[in-house]
Amino acid sequence: MTDRQTTQRYRATVEYDGTPYKGFQRQANGHTVQQAIEEAILKFSGVDLRLTAAGRTDTGVHALAQVIHFDLPVGGRRSPFRVMEAINALLVQADERIALLDCETASDTFSARFSATGRRYLYRIVNRRAPLTVERERAWWVRKGELDVEQMNAAAKRLLGTHDFTTFRAADCQAKSPIRTLDELWAERIDAQEIHIHAAARSFLHNQVRSLAGSLKLVGEGKWSADDLQDALEAQDRKACGPVAPACGLYLSSVAYPSNAR
Amino acid sequence: MTDRQTTQRYRATVEYDGTPYKGFQRQANGHTVQQAIEEAILKFSGVDLRLTAAGRTDTGVHALAQVIHFDLPVGGRRSPFRVMEAINALLVQADERIALLDCETASDTFSARFSATGRRYLYRIVNRRAPLTVERERAWWVRKGELDVEQMNAAAKRLLGTHDFTTFRAADCQAKSPIRTLDELWAERIDAQEIHIHAAARSFLHNQVRSLAGSLKLVGEGKWSADDLQDALEAQDRKACGPVAPACGLYLSSVAYPSNAR
Repeated sequence: MTDRQTTQRYRATVEYDGTPYKGFQRQANGHTVQQAIEEAILKFSGVDLRLTAAGRTDTGVHALAQVIHFDLPVGGRRSPFRVMEAINALLVQADERIALLDCETASDTFSARFSATGRRYLYRIVNRRAPLTVERERAWWVRKGELDVEQMNAAAKRLLGTHDFTTFRAADCQAKSPIRTLDELWAERIDAQEIHIHAAARSFLHNQVRSLAGSLKLVGEGKWSADDLQDALEAQDRKACGPVAPACGLYLSSVAYPSNAR
Repeated sequence: MTDRQTTQRYRATVEYDGTPYKGFQRQANGHTVQQAIEEAILKFSGVDLRLTAAGRTDTGVHALAQVIHFDLPVGGRRSPFRVMEAINALLVQADERIALLDCETASDTFSARFSATGRRYLYRIVNRRAPLTVERERAWWVRKGELDVEQMNAAAKRLLGTHDFTTFRAADCQAKSPIRTLDELWAERIDAQEIHIHAAARSFLHNQVRSLAGSLKLVGEGKWSADDLQDALEAQDRKACGPVAPACGLYLSSVAYPSNAR
């Protein structure tokens, strides 16, 4: 056999506290989640690789279940379990706030990025007068009034489906098309002070969830009506967007793959 | 009238992330929660006071509802609301992880410490293989196995009531008597990986809750039986205690006062 496999692909679910990182993606300046994981892999395997992730979260954005893949040379008794344990031990040793929740082998056709058919984000708002302490950098502190979740949901429905989301993407967004299909966008009250916004789509534009969360907060405050939100969408103009919600409230909460993508 | 009131007592509920603090109580070396609040009060009122708290939490221990009281000279339009807002604004400005959740006036006979008839603590355990990230320093990472909550509860019952808790108090505990009455001690499973231990008593010894949590964890792991826990109690010997659970999982969750203590 000449087509003998020389590398093994691994797929892992990654959780991180985004606070101390300059986002997920490796970059020239600043420590990133990708770099921290790649350094751990280098340390235990000697392989200096570049991994692939489902979503490139921004500075300060967290993940409950980011998905990555990477390839290691075959051999060296590298069961997925051993790989996960080695990476986690080195991440703890390096005082990183990143952990692999699981790890399995995958076929060479599996891509954490391109096989993904859905991304899901959670946006946490804590709506109270007192500043945040235990939840600081883990949620958006919205100080005034009480957000009206029903109004937020009524308005959010207007954005579902396929639209030009130019209003809700960052000026530096590099996606070729501003058209996306929003499968889910809804708010839920968790308790007297906490509200979660859930958003799901095949893929999102840069800053799209934070832009949507920021505008939905205006609706919750009664500053925008559902019509205002729809007008903002239809303006197809970044200037029509409400203030973008801060990174600290955003969590990449899951990534979906077809059952046969392994 | 010669007995005219010259000071006004304020009572406030305080939440904090204990991670960056050398505990609650003011001390010569290291920044404490008490010092941070007193500095904020000094800044807005010019009054250099010493406040009183219901519980002196240790380094790294959090509070969801610590209670404090302090006295300010009468006058200067110091409504409790204004006092709370001023303190919170200055705490945010000083980058502290402390917030007043509420503030009201109290009579001079009210003491956050001596009027309290009950303290309640929450101990958070996250029981999973992966290291903690978002919950790091907010819960105890217990890595191995799965804790058996039913066994923990069966054993915890043995400790309820009035006992000599010498086994479960720090060597440096300054309480005159090691006898305390434990009103509640129970564990509950929150989800697949999180367990909460609840403890309530009129007052606790130094390190008592962390000592109890550490020993209950041994029961959950199957390393100790309920009899072992009871034997440890009856030994009245600090050396019989299981390893003390770390500070980061502990939260002072509420303080009880008689309804007429205002």
